[in-house]
Amino acid sequence: MHELTLADVVREHRRSRPETVALVDGDRRLTYPELDERTNRLAGALAAAGVGRGDRVLWLGVNSFRILELLVAVGKLGAVLCPANWRQSTDELRFVLDDLRPAVVVWESGPLEEALDPLRAGSDARWICHNGEGPEGYEEWIAGHPAVDPAVEVPDTDPVLLLYTAAFDGRPNGALLSHRALVSHSLVLGALRQPEEGFVFLDSGPLFHVGTMMFAAMTLVYGGTNVLLPTFDAELACTLIERERCQGAMLFPAMITQLVEANADRRFDLSSLRFGPFDEQWNSMITLDDSPWGRSFAGYGQTQVAGMLTFHGLGLGGLGTSGRPSLLAQVRILDADGAEVPDGTVGEIVARGPHVFSGYFRRPELTARTLRDGWHHTGDLGRREKDGTLSFVGPKLRMIKSGGENVYPAEVERALQEHPAVTGAAVIGRPDETWGQHVVAIVTVSEPVAEAELIAHVRGLVASYKKPKAVVVVDEIPRRGFTPDYDLLDDAHGGGGYPGS
Amino acid sequence: MHELTLADVVREHRRSRPETVALVDGDRRLTYPELDERTNRLAGALAAAGVGRGDRVLWLGVNSFRILELLVAVGKLGAVLCPANWRQSTDELRFVLDDLRPAVVVWESGPLEEALDPLRAGSDARWICHNGEGPEGYEEWIAGHPAVDPAVEVPDTDPVLLLYTAAFDGRPNGALLSHRALVSHSLVLGALRQPEEGFVFLDSGPLFHVGTMMFAAMTLVYGGTNVLLPTFDAELACTLIERERCQGAMLFPAMITQLVEANADRRFDLSSLRFGPFDEQWNSMITLDDSPWGRSFAGYGQTQVAGMLTFHGLGLGGLGTSGRPSLLAQVRILDADGAEVPDGTVGEIVARGPHVFSGYFRRPELTARTLRDGWHHTGDLGRREKDGTLSFVGPKLRMIKSGGENVYPAEVERALQEHPAVTGAAVIGRPDETWGQHVVAIVTVSEPVAEAELIAHVRGLVASYKKPKAVVVVDEIPRRGFTPDYDLLDDAHGGGGYPGS
Repeated sequence: MHELTLADVVREHRRSRPETVALVDGDRRLTYPELDERTNRLAGALAAAGVGRGDRVLWLGVNSFRILELLVAVGKLGAVLCPANWRQSTDELRFVLDDLRPAVVVWESGPLEEALDPLRAGSDARWICHNGEGPEGYEEWIAGHPAVDPAVEVPDTDPVLLLYTAAFDGRPNGALLSHRALVSHSLVLGALRQPEEGFVFLDSGPLFHVGTMMFAAMTLVYGGTNVLLPTFDAELACTLIERERCQGAMLFPAMITQLVEANADRRFDLSSLRFGPFDEQWNSMITLDDSPWGRSFAGYGQTQVAGMLTFHGLGLGGLGTSGRPSLLAQVRILDADGAEVPDGTVGEIVARGPHVFSGYFRRPELTARTLRDGWHHTGDLGRREKDGTLSFVGPKLRMIKSGGENVYPAEVERALQEHPAVTGAAVIGRPDETWGQHVVAIVTVSEPVAEAELIAHVRGLVASYKKPKAVVVVDEIPRRGFTPDYDLLDDAHGGGGYPGS
Repeated sequence: MHELTLADVVREHRRSRPETVALVDGDRRLTYPELDERTNRLAGALAAAGVGRGDRVLWLGVNSFRILELLVAVGKLGAVLCPANWRQSTDELRFVLDDLRPAVVVWESGPLEEALDPLRAGSDARWICHNGEGPEGYEEWIAGHPAVDPAVEVPDTDPVLLLYTAAFDGRPNGALLSHRALVSHSLVLGALRQPEEGFVFLDSGPLFHVGTMMFAAMTLVYGGTNVLLPTFDAELACTLIERERCQGAMLFPAMITQLVEANADRRFDLSSLRFGPFDEQWNSMITLDDSPWGRSFAGYGQTQVAGMLTFHGLGLGGLGTSGRPSLLAQVRILDADGAEVPDGTVGEIVARGPHVFSGYFRRPELTARTLRDGWHHTGDLGRREKDGTLSFVGPKLRMIKSGGENVYPAEVERALQEHPAVTGAAVIGRPDETWGQHVVAIVTVSEPVAEAELIAHVRGLVASYKKPKAVVVVDEIPRRGFTPDYDLLDDAHGGGGYPGS
């Protein structure tokens, strides 16, 4: 009675928006009634292949309308879709396959085939080629099943989407997002972005990433049109924006630069696109988005909250760097003992609310550590400012204990990086007989700078016990993804003695 | 972990919006931290008076900030607030008191006292005078309790608000609305009305009615400011709009006319108010609201869905008279056997989704009849148009069965009323040996019109079996509230033989 799954969303749009195009991909255009019918066939095909409640379906391919219809179809069965990062190596994909144990793999022939071929050999799953012909080709596979709604009662707290998150500890973890998480996040994102009837979104980023998926879900929930871009290509993006009159897109500065270049001669009419300002040329091609999202987009987010936990648009002009929490979330900043810290103090960001994820797939211990005492522990550090806005400080990763006080490397690194000569910074703890540990800074610099000056600079920004006792200048800081490789740095610079280690 | 109650909303705003005024009432201004503290004291006072999970608190007074703080406070305990219609007679209020069996009654001294005094005598409840002094006065009562959060775990599916609904069958029924219903409806209403940071709403209608309460809840959820108008007074409304820079208000045409009159000399600056267009004068005093809600407000709603089930703003330019469903609702149109009817056919509107109510208080049979087979049966008739938009046709009330076909009086009445001479219409069924029943129209007219002409007129608009066999012209149609009094009409005009009767 009070449930609403993504499948229900499509069941309703089928009736309420019979003429609206739900998905556009190349020459293919699916209206909502067609989407509902195809996802019925697809659910039938999946069920016949053994997919039931809680089972996984793996997508190995670039962006396609089929990712979104698979999402709805698995939702009709209470199953889970994982659109994997196709840029990964065969070994990385093998890890995903072994970890996920999918009942069905929908894969893409063509350039990706070389990486996928070795995986198919030993796999128990049913492999369907989404762009292939014949009985193992997707279209023939689903055509054999009737367009009858499976009519399975699926609680909207059931997970429907699994996205692997950044592997800080060397191993990707599958974050499970429920129907309710995706639908409720969509409502909040929409409250900021204000899509109206007839909204058209260009899925110009990868759907295996929450940044694009959250907009695809929002567009679905609002009954709009998702236009799929297989992979980013500036010319094709311009063509689609013009042809489909796209109002939104997922664009980073580097992508905007490419769009501006591709449209330097004004071949394309991009005026339907409502987006934030960039440079003079860009601003004159598009329509500036005056929604709260458009005036200051994003905030602080992560896959584990289905997208954004805080929004700049809810804290316009505020003191914090990350705005205010989602209208459907509670956020607290906790110390290492789980107590709320006073405003202005850095601690771990924890959250609760309907769009928090359901845990990690097959990681009971990590899940229990992350979702505990009624709160999702984000593993990120933040600070509540005097006006209630939040500032994201950095990943928590690990803690240094010096003189009984907790020191989070990210906070000290941020302070170091505010010095004009510092181009990169990482902070470790060295064992210390008196203090347990002391703080050591490893930095890269653009010009020579005295150790004492850097230490004084940090002291001016954070509590004294957090300042480095020593500064090491290096040519390059080793990284694992975005974050410093602390294990390597510890080895190289004498780090150790961390609490709990 | 995934819950969010109205109490949680305030707990978060306390931290995220420490400087924002939550409630304004006369000279009183409560910030969110103050609201959170007062509701902690209040929850303590209520708990001490025996209020626990599922218990009721009755408000008997005009609009006040205390209704909204009571709502949050009962929410902290899992209890339920009923703001009653204070315009009711002593006998009507006695029914409410007997039906609700509240643990605490918060009442208002002054003009209402005469109606309330007889009720207090035999009541077991604790009576607190919200505008009175001494130990039974509200402020002293709550001052004695510490501002400590009761920290009771309250599922957001627990009811928190009870509103009595129109008594079609002669007896008001208390519709229970959960935290989740109010919060999720607020998100959808906000998606249409687009309140932004700093939103200020004037509660200019009665909070015992869902029409104002839904905006008060939305304003709370969005972290805005609710400004309370005790009862409607055009001059005071203008004063408050100007002083508080109100952006929204609950206004019907008659109220707008009064505001325009009160501000004929332009004493008040009402330009902060964003509202739909009315007349030339109004349009020039305010700022036209260009949100989807402002461009075409409302839709079809009822207390049992926490406000609106469909929104004009989601069907701008559509064929139907009521727009499209809430983004968090599914709607179906069913025939008398519970099967979905084809587009264009009138049937009962049923709905499901997170903002559907939780049932009627102490009405297990009515609740079972209303919330069945996974759907809320609204008791209203509607039609799905070809473009997916919906048209509200009228209350279902009862059905006529003629020749095996179902005829809903409201549909025939609507057809009759489209004739220029007809000023009012009611339709009953008369027992018929051949057909079971036949349709009889009772009408009031502005000028004489032939029976045959009216029958032909109806025949041109609806299926033949729905047309009246006889038309009776009367001076006045007896009504019960908005709807014809069918029992009286049956007695006077030979109605009877209804299916199931």
